[in-house]
Amino acid sequence: MARTKEFDPDAVLQKALELFWERGYEATSMAELVRHLGIARASIYATFGGKHDLYVKAFERYQQTRDLAVMEALSQPGPALPAVRSLVEAYAEEALCDERRRGCMVVNAAVEIMSRDPQIARRVEASWDNLETALTSALTRARAQGEISGEKDPRTLARFLLVMMQGMRVLGRAHPDPGRLRDATAQALAVLD
Amino acid sequence: MARTKEFDPDAVLQKALELFWERGYEATSMAELVRHLGIARASIYATFGGKHDLYVKAFERYQQTRDLAVMEALSQPGPALPAVRSLVEAYAEEALCDERRRGCMVVNAAVEIMSRDPQIARRVEASWDNLETALTSALTRARAQGEISGEKDPRTLARFLLVMMQGMRVLGRAHPDPGRLRDATAQALAVLD
Repeated sequence: MARTKEFDPDAVLQKALELFWERGYEATSMAELVRHLGIARASIYATFGGKHDLYVKAFERYQQTRDLAVMEALSQPGPALPAVRSLVEAYAEEALCDERRRGCMVVNAAVEIMSRDPQIARRVEASWDNLETALTSALTRARAQGEISGEKDPRTLARFLLVMMQGMRVLGRAHPDPGRLRDATAQALAVLD
Repeated sequence: MARTKEFDPDAVLQKALELFWERGYEATSMAELVRHLGIARASIYATFGGKHDLYVKAFERYQQTRDLAVMEALSQPGPALPAVRSLVEAYAEEALCDERRRGCMVVNAAVEIMSRDPQIARRVEASWDNLETALTSALTRARAQGEISGEKDPRTLARFLLVMMQGMRVLGRAHPDPGRLRDATAQALAVLD
């Protein structure tokens, strides 16, 4: 009887992503990964490499899924401003509904390991660049369509929303006071009026 | 000859604070603490307790120093709005000048361990409450002194700035793009006009 079990690498990677997202990089041990993924340590090494390689792959999966969702949300034809508002509000509501208080894996990686991990740093920067670009593009359309004043600078607004959204995700690691987060979000979105 | 060395617990606690601030909780091992603090492991246990106790004490020290500085900056007599602006700008400049990319120890603790550490969670929440209260108080004075419009709500503005400042500190863990951070800060402060 074969000692190796067949497994779906994609499903296993998703499980690793969930564990790293909730617990962070340092607090997740190889022993926990073996337990949580349900495959042998040797299979993890053979398929994904060591813990760091696995984390990088999980992070890429998270980032690509997120970036694609943001891009799609902000690239629909028609009015662009409602899409921007919805995205920012969705960040706040996600932080409020986050029972496991996982926050955002990009923010978690930025704060926990970016300063000493160039591979992760590049990916975090890429994620921020993508978000800034997608927001700038949507706000440029909003301005061209007369949805925001011609005096507003789309890139400045995009940078502002980017920083604000990172802050919202920090509060999502707590059980955030809904009033605090919703007031902050409403005030941030008022700059688009 | 005595085997124990005399040491200044206050200076040692400051060293522990610096190490935890830069590396976080999980990535800082007891062996590194022994090396960095320059005292014996037994002395660390005898004076501060284990790694978690030492972290809590270091965090309290950081938090109290920060909270006091914020309180003093925002409680001066005279115009209140310039003090609020200066504080927010100082957060941005600190993030830009942070050679060691340490960010803010409160944000780092919030993201890394708050969700599974009730002792730290209480202290992070207290720090956010203190910042919100100090900002609300300064903005209430600013409104009473005619520095901001009577239609603005000081608490909403304070909550907004609080979330924004946490986001600025996330970007401080990178080598932030100065244009991105300064644009975001200028846009955030424009809500006070």
